Amino acid sequence: MSNTPQQPAKNAKITDANISKTASVDELSMTPFPASKKIYVKGSRDDIQVAMREIELSPTKLQDGKEEHNPPVRVYDTSGPYTDPNKDIDVRLGLSPMREKWILERSDTELLEGFSSEYANIREKNIALEGLRFEYKPKPRKAREGKNVTQLHYARQGIITPEMEYIAIRENLALSEAELEKAVSEQHPGQSFGASIPKIITPEFVRDEVARGRAVIPNNINHPESEPMIIGRNFRTKVNANIGNSAVTSSIQEEVEKTVWATRWGADTVMDLSTGDNIHETREWIIRNSSVPIGTVPIYQALEKCGGVAEDLTWELFRDTLIEQAEQGVDYFTIHAGVLLRYVPMTAKRVTGIVSRGGSIMAKWCLAHHKENFLYTHFEEICAIMKAYDVCFSLGDGLRPGSIADANDEAQFSELRTLGELTKIAWKHDVQTFIEGPGHVPMHMIKENMEEQLEHCGEAPFYTLGPLTTDIAPGYDHFTSGIGAALIGWYGCAMLCYVTPKEHLGLPNKDDVKQGLITYKISAHAADLAKGHPGAQIHDNAMSKARFEFRWEDQFNLALDPDTARAYHDETLPKDSAKVAHFCSMCGPKFCSMKISQDVRDYAAEQELAKAADVGMQEMSEKFKQDGSEIYHEV
Amino acid sequence: MSNTPQQPAKNAKITDANISKTASVDELSMTPFPASKKIYVKGSRDDIQVAMREIELSPTKLQDGKEEHNPPVRVYDTSGPYTDPNKDIDVRLGLSPMREKWILERSDTELLEGFSSEYANIREKNIALEGLRFEYKPKPRKAREGKNVTQLHYARQGIITPEMEYIAIRENLALSEAELEKAVSEQHPGQSFGASIPKIITPEFVRDEVARGRAVIPNNINHPESEPMIIGRNFRTKVNANIGNSAVTSSIQEEVEKTVWATRWGADTVMDLSTGDNIHETREWIIRNSSVPIGTVPIYQALEKCGGVAEDLTWELFRDTLIEQAEQGVDYFTIHAGVLLRYVPMTAKRVTGIVSRGGSIMAKWCLAHHKENFLYTHFEEICAIMKAYDVCFSLGDGLRPGSIADANDEAQFSELRTLGELTKIAWKHDVQTFIEGPGHVPMHMIKENMEEQLEHCGEAPFYTLGPLTTDIAPGYDHFTSGIGAALIGWYGCAMLCYVTPKEHLGLPNKDDVKQGLITYKISAHAADLAKGHPGAQIHDNAMSKARFEFRWEDQFNLALDPDTARAYHDETLPKDSAKVAHFCSMCGPKFCSMKISQDVRDYAAEQELAKAADVGMQEMSEKFKQDGSEIYHEV
Repeated sequence: MSNTPQQPAKNAKITDANISKTASVDELSMTPFPASKKIYVKGSRDDIQVAMREIELSPTKLQDGKEEHNPPVRVYDTSGPYTDPNKDIDVRLGLSPMREKWILERSDTELLEGFSSEYANIREKNIALEGLRFEYKPKPRKAREGKNVTQLHYARQGIITPEMEYIAIRENLALSEAELEKAVSEQHPGQSFGASIPKIITPEFVRDEVARGRAVIPNNINHPESEPMIIGRNFRTKVNANIGNSAVTSSIQEEVEKTVWATRWGADTVMDLSTGDNIHETREWIIRNSSVPIGTVPIYQALEKCGGVAEDLTWELFRDTLIEQAEQGVDYFTIHAGVLLRYVPMTAKRVTGIVSRGGSIMAKWCLAHHKENFLYTHFEEICAIMKAYDVCFSLGDGLRPGSIADANDEAQFSELRTLGELTKIAWKHDVQTFIEGPGHVPMHMIKENMEEQLEHCGEAPFYTLGPLTTDIAPGYDHFTSGIGAALIGWYGCAMLCYVTPKEHLGLPNKDDVKQGLITYKISAHAADLAKGHPGAQIHDNAMSKARFEFRWEDQFNLALDPDTARAYHDETLPKDSAKVAHFCSMCGPKFCSMKISQDVRDYAAEQELAKAADVGMQEMSEKFKQDGSEIYHEV
Repeated sequence: MSNTPQQPAKNAKITDANISKTASVDELSMTPFPASKKIYVKGSRDDIQVAMREIELSPTKLQDGKEEHNPPVRVYDTSGPYTDPNKDIDVRLGLSPMREKWILERSDTELLEGFSSEYANIREKNIALEGLRFEYKPKPRKAREGKNVTQLHYARQGIITPEMEYIAIRENLALSEAELEKAVSEQHPGQSFGASIPKIITPEFVRDEVARGRAVIPNNINHPESEPMIIGRNFRTKVNANIGNSAVTSSIQEEVEKTVWATRWGADTVMDLSTGDNIHETREWIIRNSSVPIGTVPIYQALEKCGGVAEDLTWELFRDTLIEQAEQGVDYFTIHAGVLLRYVPMTAKRVTGIVSRGGSIMAKWCLAHHKENFLYTHFEEICAIMKAYDVCFSLGDGLRPGSIADANDEAQFSELRTLGELTKIAWKHDVQTFIEGPGHVPMHMIKENMEEQLEHCGEAPFYTLGPLTTDIAPGYDHFTSGIGAALIGWYGCAMLCYVTPKEHLGLPNKDDVKQGLITYKISAHAADLAKGHPGAQIHDNAMSKARFEFRWEDQFNLALDPDTARAYHDETLPKDSAKVAHFCSMCGPKFCSMKISQDVRDYAAEQELAKAADVGMQEMSEKFKQDGSEIYHEV
């Protein structure tokens, strides 16, 4: 099946949606991956249908002319329904709300008549926005009075939600206990730095990890379209992609397509960091069409609302923004509540001061009013909002270093300790919480970040931006940071926020988003291998076997980016016949080491046979001696 | 000066050389880097002129309208005379033999009448090759009878050669003791895993490291065009680029341009791995035009000479090839002398068998003849050749793993221990030696490679290919391996052999070579920062300061790849005015965190002033009290 031609591109035009008159019409990327099919694995009930991708492989051609079957390889799939040719996609309607039934069953929420946020209602009434708005907007849902609807709350009650079961199946790639045992026996034991990754992820293990606060399931009740996923260091290392327009460039449909594009290339969550116009409407389009959790930094929009003047921010304005976004379905909020007034002067002598946008906004506010950060002073009120919709805290590192020079300094670690205190407050409210980390850190100082975070934040998941391991290569910061991401992932970081090649230079386009994601998927997978994540090496081993057997099509299909692998190969050897040839253009036909090793292997097999024959002869000889060296026996 | 326009491209056409009638005419890449000038730092004698690149920076604009000077940043420069607009380059004549005088002064060599190699002489006499040959070929030079001309030999005699002094100046970037002290105080102390990097590299330190075998200076007496450089873990981490044609593609002038191109982007050495036609002539062109040491794998050419049939290889044929290449000026040879007959069956059960070309050739030979590897049995005869020209051993890891699955196995480490034994034999002959390493190794198993190598090979420099940290991303193996390269560089690996995006798929083109090099320069530099190499952080700090001060031109000019950094920035903000703007397209004008932090810094400064004023008042008050609180004193 691996030699079947790639399926024709299937694109859902969003022309009709007419969401912007100025930008050009874009299309969604929906072509299924080559030789791949979407499978749905049923859980304990019919409506738990866990999506994953299965890559079919061609058989190994044995020397006797026979063929040996190679089992298909399952991969963790973030691309959602977009890569399933059997699903109808209409971006004007949004994705199907697959989790809605589970939310309703719990009977702890209610549908509101309208939006609770003042700003949301103003936008609703603005006729000028009609062309921009997502038309079939669902009504917002909220916890009933006195109810807490977080996955952490359920977990602590001992409840295994359908979300948790979905995640367990997903993390195991629906492999059986026996298959996982085999996979573990065929891979290197890892070095996990105190993480405790079980051989098999059970729903109970998921519940327990969430209950301990060691993992989070970002699943706003207003985003029932998302497929459950988990962030925690005993699970697969996850990757986040940032998208979002800014005042300078980008349009709504570009952002929707960027979300679909990002999940195609492996984004486990997407952060919408828009800072330009129509943030509210852009977000609605993104959430309704996203099968992965969406994160935001609400302070960006709050600042937008007060004309970019940080001093004019108020708790009331911010609170309204939180509710506005929570009711749209944002799954996690970056909240820079650890930027305390007394920490701000610690950054004054840094080479690069404060580089987090959220951090610098809050620092400016604190200084202007000479008051403590209102995110810190109102933290428990924020918790109350979070638990009414199940929005996770992503506690922002507003004082993260912006250069190698500023790594691991007093400002950074002071804030981290405050984030640890806030984590415990959030946990008191059963609000799911993870912690953001740097930034720019040379390799030998990365481990300390992970250790400090684990210690001060009670093992809440860590979520880092890179870190960049050098500052000298703008244009390649996906890679300068990918090194740091691989390292911190290995040390126990649960989610890696990608960096694109445009970091520090400009806004990423689609290709940059893809480059950032492939780089970070590599870092995350390298980390999983190093941690010894059960079954992580199945994919590598399948690739290596295909490589050794010159199964070129399988190598392309197993690649993280099949298109690029194929294109690179075809650049020097475009003929179809080369795809079954036992050589490649690197060495030429006579010279391939792989071919020679195959000969060596055949030879060694002969030697083994000869040795076995020798051993056989020897045994016979021993027996002969034991029997008294008599040639003839009586039978 | 940083705003001066880029100098016009200067290209040396090699049309006239007419070195191939089939391929299209290529040009050499000789454009100087933007805002950069080539400087030559004089050593203890006039003919020690150490080349490096100096990047000029624009001044910082202070708030009072004044300007603050930013000193130029010196960078280690491998690009040779090609980026010096004052040098005349004629590829038909080759580069100027800058080291010739030093070699002559030592009076331990003699010029031969002709080539000692039978094969070289056959090629010389072949009229059909006239159009291909490098015309102004120098006569070969060899050690006089009984003389040993290796840098290791001199070092052990206590002699500091001009090469060693050149290297000391180069490694320090000609910074004074005070400048280096300052640089060290402004950077993070590293973690060096037992390496002992001094604050200042002195010529005596270079000599001592070479004498101990902990560093090598690849400097064939027949390659006097090369600029001295050193490979050892107490020096800057180096990067090698592989080039070379294969039977399938590529031509001579492409390879010469690839060498120039590779050194432009930071290749410290270049390996010519040609396996196709006219290897002999291609190599001559490359060496005569290369300012960096050239390495080869002589077994490739030897195999070529016997029609690609490994079984037909003989010691005599190989020996003639070594001499042929040594007299052309190859600076180091990969010799797979550790692939012992008894190790070969250890690879039979591997997922990917033997993947080293040299390793598989020797394994095949051993099995076919059921004899010990002739490179091993003739090792001392090889040493005799090496010391007559000062060719370094790069002891090849023929049994390196070709997949994550095969990492750190019995075959690999058995061979490594044999390479350790051979190192000691080479050292007995005062032959410079370094050791090749893997390959494919998950992150957590990389350190063991470095530790085993240091232990068994007596701290001889390690030179690894990557290692790749996962196998699932063909098309991105520059990055899967770049992670491993950064790690092993930090642990003490002295030189990293680059991997291009085409690895496992095809032969790299020029852009692939550049991508591989930039990736590996990042890995090497990240390693130097982590090791705490004195002065390594100067470059990062200059970039960070330029970033914080919105000096866009300086950021581009300081980038490892200025062209790409500029192009990415201009993609969203092409106007010249944006290059002095205090924002970029990532955040837009109102939102820039850098701008806000500048405000924070100003505020903190005011606070400091206020505090200082407070302290002043307090002191006055204290004094007043001490003085008895009398308002009036008698003077």
